[in-house]
Amino acid sequence: MSVITLTSDFGIKDYSVAAVKGRLLQDLPAVTIVDISHNITPFNIPETAYIVKAAYPNFPKKTLHIIGVDGEKNNLHKHVVIQAKNHYFIGADNGIFSLLFPKEAIEEIIDIHHPKSQHSSFPTLDVFVDVAAEIVNGTPLANLGEPINQVKEWVQNTPNSAHHNELLGHIVYIDHLGNVITDISKSLFEKFNDKPSFEISISNTKITKIHENYSALVDYSLPSAQRQKPEKAIAIFNSLGLLESALYKGIPNHGGSAASLLGLSVGDSITISFNN
Amino acid sequence: MSVITLTSDFGIKDYSVAAVKGRLLQDLPAVTIVDISHNITPFNIPETAYIVKAAYPNFPKKTLHIIGVDGEKNNLHKHVVIQAKNHYFIGADNGIFSLLFPKEAIEEIIDIHHPKSQHSSFPTLDVFVDVAAEIVNGTPLANLGEPINQVKEWVQNTPNSAHHNELLGHIVYIDHLGNVITDISKSLFEKFNDKPSFEISISNTKITKIHENYSALVDYSLPSAQRQKPEKAIAIFNSLGLLESALYKGIPNHGGSAASLLGLSVGDSITISFNN
Amino acid sequence: MSVITLTSDFGIKDYSVAAVKGRLLQDLPAVTIVDISHNITPFNIPETAYIVKAAYPNFPKKTLHIIGVDGEKNNLHKHVVIQAKNHYFIGADNGIFSLLFPKEAIEEIIDIHHPKSQHSSFPTLDVFVDVAAEIVNGTPLANLGEPINQVKEWVQNTPNSAHHNELLGHIVYIDHLGNVITDISKSLFEKFNDKPSFEISISNTKITKIHENYSALVDYSLPSAQRQKPEKAIAIFNSLGLLESALYKGIPNHGGSAASLLGLSVGDSITISFNN
Repeated sequence: MSVITLTSDFGIKDYSVAAVKGRLLQDLPAVTIVDISHNITPFNIPETAYIVKAAYPNFPKKTLHIIGVDGEKNNLHKHVVIQAKNHYFIGADNGIFSLLFPKEAIEEIIDIHHPKSQHSSFPTLDVFVDVAAEIVNGTPLANLGEPINQVKEWVQNTPNSAHHNELLGHIVYIDHLGNVITDISKSLFEKFNDKPSFEISISNTKITKIHENYSALVDYSLPSAQRQKPEKAIAIFNSLGLLESALYKGIPNHGGSAASLLGLSVGDSITISFNN
Repeated sequence: MSVITLTSDFGIKDYSVAAVKGRLLQDLPAVTIVDISHNITPFNIPETAYIVKAAYPNFPKKTLHIIGVDGEKNNLHKHVVIQAKNHYFIGADNGIFSLLFPKEAIEEIIDIHHPKSQHSSFPTLDVFVDVAAEIVNGTPLANLGEPINQVKEWVQNTPNSAHHNELLGHIVYIDHLGNVITDISKSLFEKFNDKPSFEISISNTKITKIHENYSALVDYSLPSAQRQKPEKAIAIFNSLGLLESALYKGIPNHGGSAASLLGLSVGDSITISFNN
Repeated sequence: MSVITLTSDFGIKDYSVAAVKGRLLQDLPAVTIVDISHNITPFNIPETAYIVKAAYPNFPKKTLHIIGVDGEKNNLHKHVVIQAKNHYFIGADNGIFSLLFPKEAIEEIIDIHHPKSQHSSFPTLDVFVDVAAEIVNGTPLANLGEPINQVKEWVQNTPNSAHHNELLGHIVYIDHLGNVITDISKSLFEKFNDKPSFEISISNTKITKIHENYSALVDYSLPSAQRQKPEKAIAIFNSLGLLESALYKGIPNHGGSAASLLGLSVGDSITISFNN
């Protein structure tokens, strides 16, 4: 049994996602197809990378991930298949692969030679499905085109930890609940473990404690009426190991989320000051 | 073959749903995964209960239902697996199970002992997937933790039929088409079968007839121009056996639905007066 | 292995889609279920037809397509199963089948006899699932009801090519990216191949070239700063062979799409004038 995932900005109303699945089932009747997301902001490569990077490691080894965002081949973007960390990725080399993997993690890159690559306005259907079927059926990657040495680089802000007492990060994603996810990882934060205290500045809010999970904010030894109300922004390291600011049970459009309460957008800064 | 369903408030853009599916496929390559809904209003337990209660009986016996709404373990909520009506349910004991089943229908309740339960901010991925895999692989429920006697109670309004000539109900859900679903069941209504007539009061509208289905409103013996137009609220007992008020072919945002026309929200009252 | 697709206006929050899938899995444990779309505009038959017509040919032969839009049986609409182009379609005969197929392509039409057809308010669950299971299990179509000769006609605008120098078409769909799709096919357009030039009028815009795909708009031989910016409407023949107007990398709600820039809706006209 093979697993193929789909990620795109096609939305879920149009015929596009079903067309791709139908074609995959024609070629590979026993395949298991899983949607990662079809609601990527159109053409947004960093967002695609964030979501795919968070989702793919949960899938079985040898899973094949089709990426249908900004997928047209043109003079700047080849169609490629990548092997990395024992998974396969098929898409346009538009910069996403440099966001998914450090150079040394990429084991193989093939510039796909496919008759429909150059002229298709729907390459996910016309090209990527064929390539996926070839791989599942055992064709070696090298037979699908020409090996190349590197993927296109996407230049992105990264956390700045150059100062001894300060970490400067950025908001990389705002999730369904309006939680604000940053690029500050737990391991980066722990490099400052010798500092006795810290203060996170995000928008006009200061946070001086990182909780274990959302419920940890609440002190259940207090009577119900005195417990933490869901209007204060807290910080946790989330399931991905990234610093996240959330409202306890905040609901977007019903009293606000961390993103709306703090007026934050992707790309905004977050600063952590450490005290000696 | 085993079937596992997923219900959550994760939305369908984020990586969360795919992460859970990927992990399930790692542990259980032959499993069939079906989404019940990922668009539950965040943290809304009664809404989750309404949707799961309507969906689950359609699935094969032994189906395993993972409920990822308000799923964190804390001092008030254990992680539990429930066996009831020959289905399994995994989630936090946040009150939902008392809304799904009367006490006598619950055959077994296990307080799950899992090393990640206490500290995870993503228990659906970190805990519930493992528990599901154990059950599918044949581990007896009793081996997953400690049996307990009762689930947490969620106090909810129920229909009041104490008066001889009146039934008082509530709106429990407003669906995709803006149809208004109440907690008055057909069997409750039929207890007043000896009454010759009735009047349903919902918002400022009176309804004196219950139709069989939406089309039944239209008298096809009339010429097309004289037929019922889709602007009047009607009542039917829906597929779940619950009293529902609908507009014939009403479309939300395009001329209105029953909910918008009548200005109704979940929790609002509906009264049926019976005449002697 | 059998494949069943689902198309509906149920939305993806409610219990309805899951109920149908659960019931299918009870009857057909080995079936593969694929969603075409559940976000059809409620009761919109032409939109349903556009999406199903674009999606179904990608599926394996013998795939069974359940259409849950305006599905109630009434004095005007029978419940039918259609065989056409080696696929099966189950739904209400509300006009959709005349939009999907020319008369001569329909091989068999059966007026379904099912005990629940007349009274159900959820025929997709109560009737269509049963019929699908019968077909997958090998029951001949003729055993499911009574053969009839024709489907209900839906009268729709079609492109007008009566003039020697002009093609008059209509907008049939606006997709997730706000691209505007017309009913002018490439083959119809090519009947005017003897004309040296043409001008497409759509809203207040004139387009005199049809590109191969979206990227083809950009001249990569120019320095980056001089390249085409994504604010101009272009025309392509899309993956379905239909004339489509798009903005290069236009994003709805973020700077506009072709539909919003040109102020267009489904049903609006598009004219192509050919010059001698």
